[in-house]
This record gives sequence, C-alpha cells and structure tokens, in this order.
Amino acid sequence: MIGILGGGQLGRMLALAGYPLGLSFRFLDPSPEACAGQVGALLVGGFLDEKALSRFAEGLDLITYEFENVPVEAARLLAERLPVYPPPLALEVAQDRLREKAFFQGLGVPTPPFYPVDGLRDLEEALGRVGLPALLKTRRGGYDGKGQALVRTPEEAEKALRALGGKGLILEGFVPFDREVSLLAVRGRAGEVAFYPLVENRHREGILRLSLAPAPGASPELQKKAEGYARRALEALDYVGVLALEFFQVGEELLFNEMAPRVHNSGHWTIEGAETSQFENHLRALLGLPLGSTAPRGHSAMVNLIGLKPPFPEVLKVEGAHLHWYGKAVRPGRKVGHITLRRDTPEALQEGLEALSRVPGLSLEVRR
Amino acid sequence: MIGILGGGQLGRMLALAGYPLGLSFRFLDPSPEACAGQVGALLVGGFLDEKALSRFAEGLDLITYEFENVPVEAARLLAERLPVYPPPLALEVAQDRLREKAFFQGLGVPTPPFYPVDGLRDLEEALGRVGLPALLKTRRGGYDGKGQALVRTPEEAEKALRALGGKGLILEGFVPFDREVSLLAVRGRAGEVAFYPLVENRHREGILRLSLAPAPGASPELQKKAEGYARRALEALDYVGVLALEFFQVGEELLFNEMAPRVHNSGHWTIEGAETSQFENHLRALLGLPLGSTAPRGHSAMVNLIGLKPPFPEVLKVEGAHLHWYGKAVRPGRKVGHITLRRDTPEALQEGLEALSRVPGLSLEVRR
Ligand SMILES: Nc1ncnc2c1ncn2[C@@H]1O[C@H](COP(=O)(O)OP(=O)(O)OP(=O)(O)O)[C@@H](O)[C@H]1O
Ligand SMILES: Nc1ncnc2c1ncn2[C@@H]1O[C@H](COP(=O)(O)OP(=O)(O)OP(=O)(O)O)[C@@H](O)[C@H]1O
Repeated sequence: MIGILGGGQLGRMLALAGYPLGLSFRFLDPSPEACAGQVGALLVGGFLDEKALSRFAEGLDLITYEFENVPVEAARLLAERLPVYPPPLALEVAQDRLREKAFFQGLGVPTPPFYPVDGLRDLEEALGRVGLPALLKTRRGGYDGKGQALVRTPEEAEKALRALGGKGLILEGFVPFDREVSLLAVRGRAGEVAFYPLVENRHREGILRLSLAPAPGASPELQKKAEGYARRALEALDYVGVLALEFFQVGEELLFNEMAPRVHNSGHWTIEGAETSQFENHLRALLGLPLGSTAPRGHSAMVNLIGLKPPFPEVLKVEGAHLHWYGKAVRPGRKVGHITLRRDTPEALQEGLEALSRVPGLSLEVRR
Repeated sequence: MIGILGGGQLGRMLALAGYPLGLSFRFLDPSPEACAGQVGALLVGGFLDEKALSRFAEGLDLITYEFENVPVEAARLLAERLPVYPPPLALEVAQDRLREKAFFQGLGVPTPPFYPVDGLRDLEEALGRVGLPALLKTRRGGYDGKGQALVRTPEEAEKALRALGGKGLILEGFVPFDREVSLLAVRGRAGEVAFYPLVENRHREGILRLSLAPAPGASPELQKKAEGYARRALEALDYVGVLALEFFQVGEELLFNEMAPRVHNSGHWTIEGAETSQFENHLRALLGLPLGSTAPRGHSAMVNLIGLKPPFPEVLKVEGAHLHWYGKAVRPGRKVGHITLRRDTPEALQEGLEALSRVPGLSLEVRR
C-alpha cells in the first residue's frame, strides 16, 4: 500500500492511475472532506500530529506527497521508517523561493535576478540591484499568485513590504516573458530519466487556466535546453518521481521560475494526451518499475475549472473533450476539475477550443 | 451514486472510468473478495436476497450490471424502484442461447443453424437438420467455453447429451469460421448510437486470449454490416448502455454467435486505444450524457492474463504496454488482469507483441 501525504485532486488522480497497476492507497489529510477520500482510504489528521503520522505509516510500503506544503519535518520523520519519495530535500528546497532560486542558480540554470529581503534596508539594496518593475514575494507559503506583489515604484515596494510582513521575502526582477512554459520530468529509482514535451501555460489572477501540450512552436533546442536544466536538478537532488519545472520563455531563453516536487497541474493533459500519464509515471518511478513512454498523442489543451461547474452535457458533446471532476464543493477560486481536449492536429484542437469556449460558464479568454 | 450488480473486474473498471466524471459507486456481490470492492463500496449479498437488494438500492440514482448471469428477477425487482440499464429484457435474452439466437434470427441477422434439444429424440432430429460436426451447448449458464461440447459423431452427441444433463440444450452447426470478431455498440437514453471498430478475437480453451483492434483487414463494408445488425438489436431491445456482439466471420459474412449486455472483455483495449473507453461510454449512455468519440487511437492488442501474474517490470518495459491488474488472487483459468499494447502502426504493434511474447509466462501463441 502506498501512502500519500495530502488528499486533494492530485492524490485522487494518483490513486486512479495506480489501481490498474494493482496498487492501493492511503491518504493523510487534515480535512475529512479531502476529495481523494472518495477513491481511497482517508486518514484524517494533521501533518505534524505524530500519532496520526504513525498510524498513517502503519503497514505502508512507501510514501509520497501530493501537496508541496507538507511540513518537511513530517516527511523526514516518516523517512526514518519508510522510503519517502521524492526525497524530503526536494520538498525543503521547493518550499523556500530563495533557496529554490539559489539552488538552480548554483546548477547554472538562468533565473530572474533575485535578492533576499528582510527589512527596509535590504529592500532598498535589492531594488538597486534588481530594478523596477519587480516582484516582492514571501519566501514561503505562497501559491496561485498569493503572497506576492508586483511593484512599479519604490513607494509601492515599501507598501508591499509592510503588507507581506516586512521580512522573509525575496525581490525578483520582473521578466517581460514571451510566455510561461513548464517541463514535467521523471526519474526512476535506478536513475533513469524521461521528459514530457514542454507545455505552454496561461495564467489569470495568478492561477493556471489553460495549458497547451506540446507547447506550440517550441523548438527541439528549447526542449533540449529545458531537459538539460531538469536533468541537473534531478541528479543534484537524487530525485525519484515526477518533478515539474516552470520557466519564463524569453526568445529562445528559459528563466527558471519555480519547481514543484510532485505531479503538477500543467501535466494533467498527459492522462489522455500522452502514452503514459504523469500520475502513472510518478508511481512507476517510486516503485522502481520501468518508466512509460512520455510521447504525446496528438495535441492537447487542458482547461482548469476554477470555482465553477460547467454543464457536463455541453462539455462532453465536444469531440475529444475529457472531463475530470474532482468531487469537491464548488467555491470561488477553487480548482474543482479540469477538461482535457485531445485532438490529432493543432487545427482540430483550435476548433475544439472554440467549441468549448461556447459552453456556458467556460470563459477561455486568457491573458498571455 | 450508481449501483452495479456484480463486483468483478468489469465493475472495477467501470468505477475507475466513472470517478473522473465525479460519480460514485456501490457494488452488490455475493463474495466479500469481489475485486471491485477495492475501489468502491461493496455490499456483500446474494442477488436473490430481497433484503440485500433493498439495502443495495437505497439512495442510488440508477443501476447497471457487469455480470450477465445476474438473475433477471433481481433486475426486474430493482427496476420497479429505479432505472435499470441495460433493460432487464436484454439480460433475459442473453441468458438463454436459444432465445438469443432466435431473437437475432428474427431480426434477420444470420446465425449458425441451431435447434433446441430436450431429449434424445430432439437430438436425433437436430443432428438431421444441423449436420455434423456440431456443438451441443446448455441453453443457460455456460461461459468461457464451459457447458458445451464439440461433437463429431452421433455417439459423441449422445454422450454429450448425457454429460450436459439431457435437456435445456441447443445444438448448433459447426461454423468453419475464418476468425471471430466482436462489435462493441453503445446506445444512449435518447436513442443515439455509436460503434467501435470491429475487433478480432482469438480464444484458447474457450477463453479469450488476445484481441486485435481495429480487426486487421476488416473492410468498411464488414464494419457497416456489423453495425447494421447491432442497430437492429439495440432498437428492438430499446437498449441503453454498451452491448457486445460476437460474430463468426466467414469470408465477408458475419454469423451472430452471442451477445453480452454489458461492457466486454474484447473492449478493454478502448481504455488506451480509443478516444473514449467502453466503460466511460457505458456510463455516459446510462446518465443521458452525450456519447464520446469511439475513434481508435492507433492500433491495439489486448492480452488477457489468465491464471498468471507476469513480472510487471518485464511487461512495463515494452513501449506502449499498459498493465491492468485486477487485484484478484491468482487461480488457474481465472482472468486476473490484462495488458493493452497500443502503438501507432500495425508494424510497431507486431514488434511490440513480439517483445511481449518474450516476457516469462506470457505465451502469446494462440490458435486462430
Ligand atoms: N519574476 C517574474 N516576472 C514576471 N512575472 C512573474 C515573475 N514571478 C511571477 N510572475 C507571474 O506571477 C505568476 C505566479 O508566480 P509564482 O509562480 O512565483 O507564484 P505561485 O503563487 O507560487 O504560483 P503557482 O501556483 O504556480 O505555484 C507567474 O506564473 C507569472 O505569471
Ligand atoms: N457454432 C460454432 N461453430 C464453431 N465454433 C464455435 C461455435 N460455437 C462456439 N464455438 C467456439 O467456442 C467458443 C465459445 O463459444 P460460446 O461463445 O458459445 O461460449 P461461451 O462459453 O459463452 O463463451 P464466452 O465466454 O465468450 O461467453 C467460441 O468463441 C468459438 O471459438
């Protein structure tokens, strides 16, 4: 039995990918409503509750996580008893934007200019180095665009400094990117690696709205470059499982933005759009099984359902549309499902997207 | 919540296809070991136990079945309270080989010659009409080649008559078929229909071993013919859900052999090999949702795992191999899993099959 820290949609989709391999799953989540509980055994408990962790670990073969804010202490504690993949070190690095960027910089991977900020003096110095506009972000705990502010003037920067708590921050130069792309990489227990094609991601209000896979127009050189960067990180971390890397693309350059040491929203298209899904490959990696082919099947678009339940019949009548509803209550801003549209050609995909955009409630206009 | 009569692998795969649609499932099965219980709520009880049926039905939205020997009385009883799809009439027809063949004959669908046998006199008359060799089969309860005998002489026929209980039998002329093919058809609640491409099926010892989809070399005319036959049956039964039809192919003719009013082993390839799986389309049909595209994606082979657990790493290292392990204890002759091999071209599929046939334990030589 595989234990998963976190019981959200990522855990749910991991379990659904694992059942065909004959696996079974237990989730640990503080919420009794965690949607993975609908498809596997849910243990309700806090990640820092040692008793809960101990009950959770009982009888498991190995442990993984689907939530990158799992406390590193919890992962380390469990790792004393059982294999925990990806390694807790990856979690630690990913949880701190400063460490994360410094780690990639140390690997020779380009990043936006960044500077730690723990007070007004740091801020002034950072602004001097990084320039304006810039992004002031909390080092920890931010997600979906929360915990960060775009600042255009020194006054805005000072205001943001106060709003974000005055310390434990990082100032990043604003990158006038052409687009955002991500790479899903996977590394097995014997060190073998595989990469999915680059994905183009479009956000609105800090939340991923649409992914296009493979990323239209991405050159083989760009793919190679991204894979090279990922390979360095995978090896440095002695990584096992799926690792997602997000980049800003500027011309043919890639600047590292952030990593997620887990299956990732921008990889959901792989369920229908690739030979092997990111979920299955994560599990194969953990279990020491051969990795599956990451080859795409045609062209896919993944549309996140954020705080809305579209009329299912309207969605499903679009040819090649695959609906994933997570079984969560609909709340504003909440990821409650996604649709993957898979078609054989880019033109057919475009047509399908136009059909989807006519579904009541589904607004597909997204900022680039 | 959807209720499923029967908790075997078909129920299990229905649930795994239904979770992404936000559905939940309850199974009724006499065995506490029923493997669908690993992925959904299992109620252990007999199909003829009225109390169990009543508890099973409680709070369900609709009911379907995954086991074609569910007693028709149970389906009818439940149908008084809730929608039961496919209609119990389809179950009734499918459970009796005589009625089944007569039903298709009545629709103008060619069948092997057949004749009811309820004693020695019938047998003699039947042999006179049907000729030798022939197959003597029980009208009810046979599956995977059980409950039938190939007879070459009147003496063998008499012996088989005694062995099979002397009555409730059917004698069928032996068809020197070129191959066996099946058609997976689906009909929605509004009467819309869809068909998967014909599948070639190879049996050994009465059990399906290998399916090739789309059936190599099947002409568009053959596909049309099969669809026409299926359409008549779907309409005559006012059918809702997936219906599987098995045929003997002789030249460009199709002779109806049997139907299964449910998702079918020869449709398992659709999970990876078609745009929408038979399991999802069955559920879409039941729920009145638009049917999904039945277009194949490349070329697939489905290999049944009968009474053996192959080494998973060896299977998964074959490119395009997808493993489905049902979570059942391995017993001789028992279907415990299947492998679908999906590739883009027939040549690549052939190569993949050769690689698979080298996996220890997997013998892919099959009689045609
Ligand atoms: N240095 C930057 N230059 C330009 N835009 C940026 C920069 N940093 C962040 N952004 C924009 O803000 C979005 C969210 O930023 P980031 O990925 O750091 O935050 P997050 O809240 O952790 O998001 P996620 O939910 O993807 O983890 C980015 O996808 C990008 O559109
Ligand atoms: N009339 C026939 N002529 C030639 N071969 C036949 C005939 N009837 C049956 N067979 C052979 O025996 C196999 C099993 O027969 P049938 O499909 O009637 O039995 P079953 O036990 O119900 O199988 P299943 O598990 O597919 O339901 C067929 O697939 C075919 O290979």
